[in-house]
Amino acid sequence: MLVQMKFDLNKSIELLEKTPFILESFFENLSNDWLKSNEGEKTWSPYDILGHLIFGEKTDWIIRAKIILSPSKRKLFEPFDRFAQFNEDQNTMVSELINEFKALRKNNLKELESLNIKPEDLKRKGEHPELGEVTLEQLLSTWVVHDLGHIAQISRVMAKQYKSNVGPWEAYLGILKK
Amino acid sequence: MLVQMKFDLNKSIELLEKTPFILESFFENLSNDWLKSNEGEKTWSPYDILGHLIFGEKTDWIIRAKIILSPSKRKLFEPFDRFAQFNEDQNTMVSELINEFKALRKNNLKELESLNIKPEDLKRKGEHPELGEVTLEQLLSTWVVHDLGHIAQISRVMAKQYKSNVGPWEAYLGILKK
Repeated sequence: MLVQMKFDLNKSIELLEKTPFILESFFENLSNDWLKSNEGEKTWSPYDILGHLIFGEKTDWIIRAKIILSPSKRKLFEPFDRFAQFNEDQNTMVSELINEFKALRKNNLKELESLNIKPEDLKRKGEHPELGEVTLEQLLSTWVVHDLGHIAQISRVMAKQYKSNVGPWEAYLGILKK
Repeated sequence: MLVQMKFDLNKSIELLEKTPFILESFFENLSNDWLKSNEGEKTWSPYDILGHLIFGEKTDWIIRAKIILSPSKRKLFEPFDRFAQFNEDQNTMVSELINEFKALRKNNLKELESLNIKPEDLKRKGEHPELGEVTLEQLLSTWVVHDLGHIAQISRVMAKQYKSNVGPWEAYLGILKK
């Protein structure tokens, strides 16, 4: 039986703090073949995914948390642009992007702390442009799961580059079937 | 179109070297809730997965590479015990396991280098107890993909702990459906 964890602000921050360092371990001195290959047309490379995570830090998570906690009655979030990273210079060094992500995440977690969130605040609501009413707890949980989802995606995109090289082992490697 | 990479020994080693550091970033000071929760009965926690990777270093990859390259005509691999980690002390500190994995991987990559593999060696074959004939190239590719698969699994197992906390965002989070 899957006994899921209760939401816990500190345990969420614990993971959010890790993500830039996990990505740094992945991307440091990584060959362009691993970095820039994707899963086929209209899919993302590890480099694209990093750009997407940077845009989330700039325009999504903490901004939405502040909308939820603001005294204003208007709680509608701006839609998030999932493709913003493709408008950026595609030649920016990955080490530069990692440093940018590290700095943005650090600042955003400082801001999160300064919001001084109380247990009762977690039930406060904002309005997602597509999903409707969502709570602060759901937003913060999603921030964590979104990070983990993209770490898994980076692993999968890289694994697929060797799909035709593993021979009969393909049968044992579930990641190649996703 | 997915343009897959050709097998490249150096680019494989590049990723194999990274895995212990990626796992260290994940596991350093990680709460037990994240570390020891799994996806339900008969599934593995991040802690179990780390134990499994350690057993791979001890009994699988490099040993099989050496069987393939040995002058002996007998090339049958020992079956790999996927559950060996459950016979170990379940209270060993994760930091100790990370250090063990780091040391084992480092040694195994040194051994790999000392095998001085030539392009023509990559086609040499061993016999997998279930899959039959496999080449050295397939073994080494599988080593890389196996690492990446387990990194993705660790991310997924942790993400699932928050499955019921993300509310309507579940629809956007593919990792929760796997």
